[in-house]
Amino acid sequence: MNAEPNRQILLAARPVGEPKPSDFDLVEKNIPTPGDEEVLCKTIYLSLDPYMRGRMNDTKTYAEPVAIGGVMEGGTVSRVVSSKNDAFREGDIVVARTGWQDYAVTPGSQLRKVDPGLAPISTAIGVLGMPGMTAYTGLLNIGKPQPGETVVVAAASGAVGSIVGQIAKIKGCKVVGLAGSSEKCEYVKEKFGFDACLNHRDADVAAQLSKACNNGIDVYFENVGGAVWEAVLPLFNMFARVPVCGLISHYNATSLPGAPNRVPELMFKVLTHRLTLRGFIVRDYDDQQTEFLSETANWIKDDKIHYREDFVDGLEIAPKALIGLLKGNNFGKLIVRVSPDPTL
Amino acid sequence: MNAEPNRQILLAARPVGEPKPSDFDLVEKNIPTPGDEEVLCKTIYLSLDPYMRGRMNDTKTYAEPVAIGGVMEGGTVSRVVSSKNDAFREGDIVVARTGWQDYAVTPGSQLRKVDPGLAPISTAIGVLGMPGMTAYTGLLNIGKPQPGETVVVAAASGAVGSIVGQIAKIKGCKVVGLAGSSEKCEYVKEKFGFDACLNHRDADVAAQLSKACNNGIDVYFENVGGAVWEAVLPLFNMFARVPVCGLISHYNATSLPGAPNRVPELMFKVLTHRLTLRGFIVRDYDDQQTEFLSETANWIKDDKIHYREDFVDGLEIAPKALIGLLKGNNFGKLIVRVSPDPTL
Repeated sequence: MNAEPNRQILLAARPVGEPKPSDFDLVEKNIPTPGDEEVLCKTIYLSLDPYMRGRMNDTKTYAEPVAIGGVMEGGTVSRVVSSKNDAFREGDIVVARTGWQDYAVTPGSQLRKVDPGLAPISTAIGVLGMPGMTAYTGLLNIGKPQPGETVVVAAASGAVGSIVGQIAKIKGCKVVGLAGSSEKCEYVKEKFGFDACLNHRDADVAAQLSKACNNGIDVYFENVGGAVWEAVLPLFNMFARVPVCGLISHYNATSLPGAPNRVPELMFKVLTHRLTLRGFIVRDYDDQQTEFLSETANWIKDDKIHYREDFVDGLEIAPKALIGLLKGNNFGKLIVRVSPDPTL
Repeated sequence: MNAEPNRQILLAARPVGEPKPSDFDLVEKNIPTPGDEEVLCKTIYLSLDPYMRGRMNDTKTYAEPVAIGGVMEGGTVSRVVSSKNDAFREGDIVVARTGWQDYAVTPGSQLRKVDPGLAPISTAIGVLGMPGMTAYTGLLNIGKPQPGETVVVAAASGAVGSIVGQIAKIKGCKVVGLAGSSEKCEYVKEKFGFDACLNHRDADVAAQLSKACNNGIDVYFENVGGAVWEAVLPLFNMFARVPVCGLISHYNATSLPGAPNRVPELMFKVLTHRLTLRGFIVRDYDDQQTEFLSETANWIKDDKIHYREDFVDGLEIAPKALIGLLKGNNFGKLIVRVSPDPTL
């Protein structure tokens, strides 16, 4: 047998507030053997995403929490090492959901083959994967951007926000982003082509947003909550749409914010401006995957969509990288290089 | 000329919190004379509705505020006294938006003829008017109730809530209402056929609601806000829909409630349960008027929809009646009898 161990990162403890390195545990196990219809995969790239913070809590939402002692969840780009499933053979590159580990056995039904000729395979967990499809489906199905409208998106240099804004530009909108540093804001304007990008750490960001959105806001793609939401709320136009995708500013919160309770303010705005707020997760739109992939791949080829990847090296770095992601330390789609990319 | 005066109730001052009688002014003017294409109407019934509180504030929302010294706004059932518009003639019964006064001149384009053979003419500002159409359009377009689902509606004995619940029953739903007294709750169950109705003044109403909605909540028709909203929020099922129609519990508020700020809690629920919250006003669905009228008239004829009217007598009583409406003192659709109904 292969003497190489299978490193796994487990959830050791449920974080209270910000996750700590001690909430994770690195263990070594034997590499598992596939059974009928199963495939043994070796992780090349591990995707780190804000939703993972929610899985660390003991709260069932749309998904089960990770168990204490369970392998941390996550999407990966992996290489097929051996297969007992006719649809896959050794060397295939696949997208899997095998989590924070070197190797995993998984039913073939949970894998999707990646075409290395289409784009770098790392994009299968980025612009051509879950984050890109989140942007695409949420913006188009719920945001319904119309030419000339103003679209606002926070975390604008991130994996989802950057794609939301660029698709909105393709649809003829004015796009205003928010990001966490002036360097990110410059990049968002220059490389992603946003009309404006504001630093959400500026004290007067609400005033800046009001000025940048001089025709109001028609679509706000919500992935942060908190102060950005409060800056956006007064600016909504009649019949504005709010795809609710994430709330990263609240993920580490241990209690609700203080007074006043702004729920009535929110509901009055919904009522008087006939807003639509709608939550979604990407798998609500599974049936749009083919369309998403082909359209987005074309946009990349036509130079209409750009993406930025933020690589970190080594499975063991994943806890620290996730902790940083939740503070906005990443710059672009955060990806852990777990093993060498055979297509490079 | 006619020596009879035209009594008008004006907005004398913008209320701070609960309106007071001194915020209104009763004046006498001459009866106006119609110009080209105009019609002189005499008010028979004046509709009193919660939205009027909003018009008394100096805040433009979807409608202009009533000016200080302006006639209070409102829907009426009126009789045509004289007409310079070929579409109307003396004696016609019309629905108008001529407000709190005995007589008014209005362009014929703003009138809709009422068929006294269809139902009592007072229903043209109730079940067959704005409140009924609010219930019908909000529930069917946004709530989209499906057979077997659970629909919750507050102010269940009121002009809108009573119709929401009965239409939901017609659509095969389980319907749970909330109302402000045990007498109202009994009526809602017996006469309107709701499966359950809870007294929102009971201290343990949240626990009662949780028990009554043992399969969760799929549609919540929001017309009150406040404590009822907080009781409803934990009970939402995945993909639940919330037509936001009104927020009567907040209309007299002079400040936001205290800590904690429950906005993140609301947004997390929207996200994890993929809720849809959507505000609307009835005129967003003007193109559904014919369909609404014919379907609802048939339901009344077939004994599937019942309604309750709460009449008060005399234009001068309108301020006191509106103040009471905002406290839930009415029992059914609140209507001021301004002059004798010629069809009775």
